[in-house]
Amino acid sequence: MSESPVCRYRATVEYDGTDFLGYQIQAAGRTVQGEIEASLQKITQSFVRIDGAGRTDAGVHATGQVIAFNVAWRHSLTELHRALNATLPRDIVIRTLTTTDRDFHPRFGALSRTYRYQIINQRWPSVMQQRYAYHIERSLDVEAMNIASRYLIGSHDFASFGKPPQGENTVRRVTQAEWLVEAGNRIVFEITANAFLYRMVRNIVGTMVQVGSGQLLPDDVQQILLAKNLKLSAAPAPAHGLCLVNVTYPDST
Amino acid sequence: MSESPVCRYRATVEYDGTDFLGYQIQAAGRTVQGEIEASLQKITQSFVRIDGAGRTDAGVHATGQVIAFNVAWRHSLTELHRALNATLPRDIVIRTLTTTDRDFHPRFGALSRTYRYQIINQRWPSVMQQRYAYHIERSLDVEAMNIASRYLIGSHDFASFGKPPQGENTVRRVTQAEWLVEAGNRIVFEITANAFLYRMVRNIVGTMVQVGSGQLLPDDVQQILLAKNLKLSAAPAPAHGLCLVNVTYPDST
Repeated sequence: MSESPVCRYRATVEYDGTDFLGYQIQAAGRTVQGEIEASLQKITQSFVRIDGAGRTDAGVHATGQVIAFNVAWRHSLTELHRALNATLPRDIVIRTLTTTDRDFHPRFGALSRTYRYQIINQRWPSVMQQRYAYHIERSLDVEAMNIASRYLIGSHDFASFGKPPQGENTVRRVTQAEWLVEAGNRIVFEITANAFLYRMVRNIVGTMVQVGSGQLLPDDVQQILLAKNLKLSAAPAPAHGLCLVNVTYPDST
Repeated sequence: MSESPVCRYRATVEYDGTDFLGYQIQAAGRTVQGEIEASLQKITQSFVRIDGAGRTDAGVHATGQVIAFNVAWRHSLTELHRALNATLPRDIVIRTLTTTDRDFHPRFGALSRTYRYQIINQRWPSVMQQRYAYHIERSLDVEAMNIASRYLIGSHDFASFGKPPQGENTVRRVTQAEWLVEAGNRIVFEITANAFLYRMVRNIVGTMVQVGSGQLLPDDVQQILLAKNLKLSAAPAPAHGLCLVNVTYPDST
């Protein structure tokens, strides 16, 4: 029997983060990476390591996580896609699957990441949206939150809003940061940056909610940013409101 | 201690039907009615029977179920509302609560009910929407489904699409029946009638999906309707795509 050549694959992954300890594999506990690697092992009968674009926290969701892995697969791409979705648990689905360059790396090759943070701003929680949106009872001033958001745009030292992976600096380039009002009392924060610090979006949202409820002025966000002191940001907003929606790459990959 | 007078209350209720055997209380098993009555008993220390507008099936959701009940309550309306939501399980929430007329009955007094049925029409299921939408892989012809929907509008004998409660006839008046295409490959059926037969919406949707996938022609729906034979409709679409969204009453109540 001839060996199939090893190819590199790139996939877009959607998951409901509720029942995961996060994206990244750990010594114990259920992780997105662990489940996908287990599916690949079941399908290919060999251990396959996957690389992911964003190491989302426990409880954080994704509609656009990007992963890559090398496997020797003798059947069609469609059959690999089908086999993966057939063996994955109900809370993970592979949305797209393609072959990719040998040197494609979803994390190191990414140009930008976009996250969405959903808030339901009404008197009582919405049963249907409670898995994916943070319920806030007091009315939020979205205009003030948008004024504050503008201070984030550009290249800044975000040390007040998150910790870097070991040894890295805390400068990040934010290209979009905006609050949108959607139907049904839903307020959504969309933020795009070249990369994010640990808990950066949740720390920003926690601070923005203080602006929206009048505990901070929009200008205070600029002062917090300039202070480069993680103690000055508000407590992080809960994980379940957050979703990694998109990762971009140079056209060539 | 003086007794509080007994008042009648009207509430709009949202629930996630996933973990219920349906709205209506049964000899055994978890029901929406049972949970709300248990909360009222906890709060008032006496048994309170509630009346509901629609007896939704197991797995069917609601954002606009209407209920009514009589209780003697010595505190404010807001406090009753808060006490109810504080004691109800996470998958039920009281959205609005008001006092109402002594003779208000949510089922017998209703002028119309509106249901929504959600379909996700794409190659792979959406993890985030799987609790509330029926996933269909093959591409549906929404235009054909809308042509078929028009045959439903008006007063018709809907015996081909559902069974009546005991002794009732099968004529119902449908005032709206329409498929809408929403963002993210979501196709939504909205139907309003004075009242519905048992499983009527799900039987209609099951039949419409056959129209959308080319197994039936739009005209066949008219033939099925005229035949007044329940065996001719398709199998009911799954419960989890269905949601009771609105119930209307004469202005006076």
